[in-house]
Parts: sequence; C-alpha cells; structure tokens
Amino acid sequence: MSNTNRQLRLQSRPKGLLAPGDLQLAESPVPELKDGQALARVKYLSIDPTMRVWMVVDTYFPAVRIGEVMRSFGFAEIVESRHPDYKKGDRVIGLTGFQDYVVVDASDKQSFQKVPKIPFVSDTAFLGVLGINGLTAFFGMEIGQPKKGDTLVVAAAAGATGSIVGQIGKIHGCRVVGIAGSDDKCAWIAKDLGFDVAINYKLPDWKEKLAAATPNGIDIDFENVGGEIMQEVLKRMNLHGRVVLCGLISGYTKEDPAMASFANVLVKRLRVRGFILVDYSSRFMEAATQLGQWKMFGKLKGRETIVEGLEKAPDAINMLFTGGNTGKLIVKV
Amino acid sequence: MSNTNRQLRLQSRPKGLLAPGDLQLAESPVPELKDGQALARVKYLSIDPTMRVWMVVDTYFPAVRIGEVMRSFGFAEIVESRHPDYKKGDRVIGLTGFQDYVVVDASDKQSFQKVPKIPFVSDTAFLGVLGINGLTAFFGMEIGQPKKGDTLVVAAAAGATGSIVGQIGKIHGCRVVGIAGSDDKCAWIAKDLGFDVAINYKLPDWKEKLAAATPNGIDIDFENVGGEIMQEVLKRMNLHGRVVLCGLISGYTKEDPAMASFANVLVKRLRVRGFILVDYSSRFMEAATQLGQWKMFGKLKGRETIVEGLEKAPDAINMLFTGGNTGKLIVKV
Repeated sequence: MSNTNRQLRLQSRPKGLLAPGDLQLAESPVPELKDGQALARVKYLSIDPTMRVWMVVDTYFPAVRIGEVMRSFGFAEIVESRHPDYKKGDRVIGLTGFQDYVVVDASDKQSFQKVPKIPFVSDTAFLGVLGINGLTAFFGMEIGQPKKGDTLVVAAAAGATGSIVGQIGKIHGCRVVGIAGSDDKCAWIAKDLGFDVAINYKLPDWKEKLAAATPNGIDIDFENVGGEIMQEVLKRMNLHGRVVLCGLISGYTKEDPAMASFANVLVKRLRVRGFILVDYSSRFMEAATQLGQWKMFGKLKGRETIVEGLEKAPDAINMLFTGGNTGKLIVKV
Repeated sequence: MSNTNRQLRLQSRPKGLLAPGDLQLAESPVPELKDGQALARVKYLSIDPTMRVWMVVDTYFPAVRIGEVMRSFGFAEIVESRHPDYKKGDRVIGLTGFQDYVVVDASDKQSFQKVPKIPFVSDTAFLGVLGINGLTAFFGMEIGQPKKGDTLVVAAAAGATGSIVGQIGKIHGCRVVGIAGSDDKCAWIAKDLGFDVAINYKLPDWKEKLAAATPNGIDIDFENVGGEIMQEVLKRMNLHGRVVLCGLISGYTKEDPAMASFANVLVKRLRVRGFILVDYSSRFMEAATQLGQWKMFGKLKGRETIVEGLEKAPDAINMLFTGGNTGKLIVKV
C-alpha cells in the first residue's frame, strides 16, 4: 500500500467546460485510522453530469468548497479496518471523491453501502445499471407512470441513465423514442437496446423526425437535457402528460436564465401542474356550493370593476394587462 | 326587444395590447329560433386574461376565427324559448360571446348552465366568486394541497382569481402573501381580504420584501403571472413544494420563448416533477433487486466508456458535455 493519497481538489469554479487547473492534483498522506473507521482503496469513479453542478452552486448537496476534494460517487475496496462492520476485501459504493483512498466512518453510514460479489456482474455495474443510473431510471419511471402503449421520449438516450430509462420503457410496453447526439449512439440504442426510434439531434431535420416518430403525441418526457430539445418535446406532449425532470444537462455549462426556473423545479423537487378549469366541469356544483357557503359566512369577499357598454369590451380586455381593474372585471352590456 | 344583435367580431389577431379594429362592432339581425332553441339577452360579460390567448392560438379551445364573434363567458337572461328546459326569465351563464343576444341550443347543453336567484347574491357573482374565478381558485387550491402553516404565494393577487385564492388559503390556515401592482390593490387584499402580507411588485425592493415575507420559504405557488415574478417565487420554494400553473399573464401580450415551455405545461395540463435520487434512499434495495433481475434476464443492457487514471477525471467530466461517452462513463483509478 502506498503512503500517498492522490487527490483532485477544486481550485476554481469552472465557467463552461472545465479548464486545466479547475481541479488540481495534490498529494497528502494516507489518513491514519481511528476506532470506528475503515480505509478503502478507490477503484472506480462514477462520472455524472450533476458533478458539474456541484462544482458551482449549492443544490441538494452544498457546492464543493474551494480546496476540497472533488465530490463523486465511486467503487472502493476496504484495505484496512478498525470498524466492526467492514473487513478487508469488503466492497463499497458511495461518495468516495476523486482520490486514491477514502475513510469510511461509522458515523457516516449513509454515505457508503456494501455491495455483494455477484457472478457475471462487474464491479462497475454497481455504479451504473445497479447503481445511481439504474436507480435514477427506476424511480424516475415510477414518477412517469408508464402504461402499455404510452409514448415515452428520452434525450441523452445513449447516456448511462437514458439508456436504462428507454429499456425500462420497453419493459412496460411503451413506444420508446430516444434522442442522442451521433449516428453511432442512435444505432446502439435502436439495434442493441430495442428503442423503437432513435433520433440524432445534430441532424438539421431532427424536429421533423421527432414529429414523425410520435404520431400519437408524447405521454412521458423523461427529461435529462432541457433547452431546445425539451422545448420541442413539450410542444408534442399529450394532455395530462408527465414530465420527469431529472436533468438539464444542456444548461450546466452555460448561464441560461430561461432554464433557471426549471432548475429550481428540479433541485427543489417541485410538483408543477398545469391546470385549466374545463377538466373539472363534472364537479362545478360541489365547488359552487362550498364557495357559496363561504361567501354567505363572509369568508370570501370580492370587488368588481364594471365597464359599461358592449363597445367598451376591447378596452376592458386591455385593462387586465395594464392593471386597470381590481377584483372581477365585468362588462355590462 | 330590438331586432338588431350587436356583435364584436375578431377582425385581426392582436400583437401586444388590443389595437382599435382588432375587434369590430357589427350588427346582424337577432336570430330566428328553431325548435329546441332559446334566445337569451346578454347582460354581463366576464373579462378574463385567457381571452387574449383565445384571440391568437389554439389551446383547450380553438383560436377564435377571423370574422367570428369574440368568445367570452357571460350572464344572460332567456327572452324567448322553443326549448322545454328554458322559459322566459330563466338566467344562464356560459359562452355568450361579445354580443347582445345568444342562442341557447338543446344540442349545446354543455355550454350554458341555469343559475338560481339567490338572496343577496348579485347576478355578476355567477361570473366571479361563484363562477369561473371561484371555481378556478377552488380546484387550483385542491391541486396546491394547502396545509395549516404552509406559506402560499399568489401574484395577480388583487385580480378576480387571485383574490379568492388568497382567501381560500386563509380558510385553510396558510400564511398568505399576495403580489399585486399598486399600493391600492395591496391595501385592499391586506386590510379587507386578510392576506398576511401584500407586496407591490412595481416598487424597486419587491424582491427583498418577498424574501422578508417568506422567512420559512414558500410551499405553494399559485402561479397566475409567469416571467420574472414566477422566477423569483420559484427561487424561494421549499423542497417538495407545489406549483399550480394556472396562468402566465405576463406572457400573453408578448413573444417570450422562455415562457413557451411553461405555456405548454399549462395548456396541456402536464404534471412536471423535479426528481433527485437522494429522496428514494430507503428504497434502493428494492429497486436494485428489480434491476438486477432485469439485467440477469437480458432485459437491461449497458455499455461503458472507461477512462484510465485519476488524473484524467477532469477530462472525463467534460466528455459528458461534448458527447464523448456512450453509456456509463467511469474513471478507473
């Protein structure tokens, strides 16, 4: 065992793509263990889009501090232990960070999980299909509520999460359309993974292809990308469709105020629901009865702005936008 | 009874605010009734922001056609009837349009509802608190799932819908913060309607005031406005908050590509849910077991892109954004 722990530490917050020096290699001694700790040798690091976000802003995790080891998931093997739950050779996944060695602490049990040895399952599978990406696809698709015959669209479809999302869609009997950034990637998801259609968004006619691939509209958008691709997918959504807002990778390397609101929806796990009254017509009586009671007991007060004359109706519409009315705006014919 | 039916017809689709001539006054004879029809004299027209949208694009209703009578809700009284369900003096609400007289048709029962005479309830209340706006506030707040102590923010708070939304929030025990466009409106919602705080968004320090008014963040955004106000409200949302996307009035009179996606969410009544894996940690085992089975039976395939060497990890992060990897991206330390 080496005495040196190589680490990649955050030196400056990237703008756009990472520049040389944003992460700097440093060496520190391998930490001495205290009781209740184990030392793990990091074998594999998971590289995920969300890491780019961790480098610049607080989200569900605080932003990585300047000088701190870059946060990442990884796969590691216990090499030394003063912790009853871990013995040499145990394998763990968790927030290893970009370094050779990581201390697994008793007080820190959330951060690491032991993983078993399973025949035919590689170590790296615990970072992908059986790890972050598989779990993300699994729970995200639960939110998407796939039904047999639904049309599911996923972009970044040849990525670690998107490729599993589409396959889970097929398991549920969906028509699956994947959007990816090269012909090779498209060939992989269509031929090897069984996506119904794969669209290369770098070709000029990708929007027409998306329309042709979704003749019955889109029921589920598993959103990994944001930006123009999301805009186009949302245009083709069916009534009461579901959008699983899982990632906005197109916005992670640039400032995009249009994306800021969606970023808030994502990071805060908000539930946004488009709402139009016509869907509730069968329940109008029930609601009006309740409203009438509240009004009768003085719990609902109102004010009206009344404009006289049919011919003034166009001006009345404009008042809504110039702030001319308070309360209900009515034209008396 | 006059023989003339004055109508305001759509002559051109407005850009920005309505210009003179976008709606033009025309006269046509009062329609002759057939069996199964009744004639109603329009007394009051409801003026609603959504009408501006109907003038330009297809939504949940088709756009008003050029030359057609402008669509609107209204209150009308039956003056003549060849329909067994309606007799002279009956009062109806429904899609009257901008005109003096409207034909109520048997085959068209969805469009009109008879309303009773209720002591102390004005005719216009059936267009406001007991009509479209009350119903919108009622069902929208059902989506918002208010709980005692939640903080609710509503903009256009002195409008017909917003003013009821806030009062329903108070009925449910919420802390209610209203955003409106003048000091008069703010005084009305705070003093007469009982909102906890009213903020005039035309004052330069409104964002600071919003922050001060929501010390525990925001649980429910009843969204009527969109644009900068929505952006600011979303910034202050709490984890797992609810956004009732009911209107985007700030975008109805201008082209705003940033708003197009939210407009789709609204018009198509989509459910958008921000999603991050950490919320599901208690169920990882269950999911990994299912994923493992699928993998074993060949239903989930994967591909890995493996980069060798800790020092290459920064380049690996960039590969995610330049499209360099297919499938799971891993750094082998």
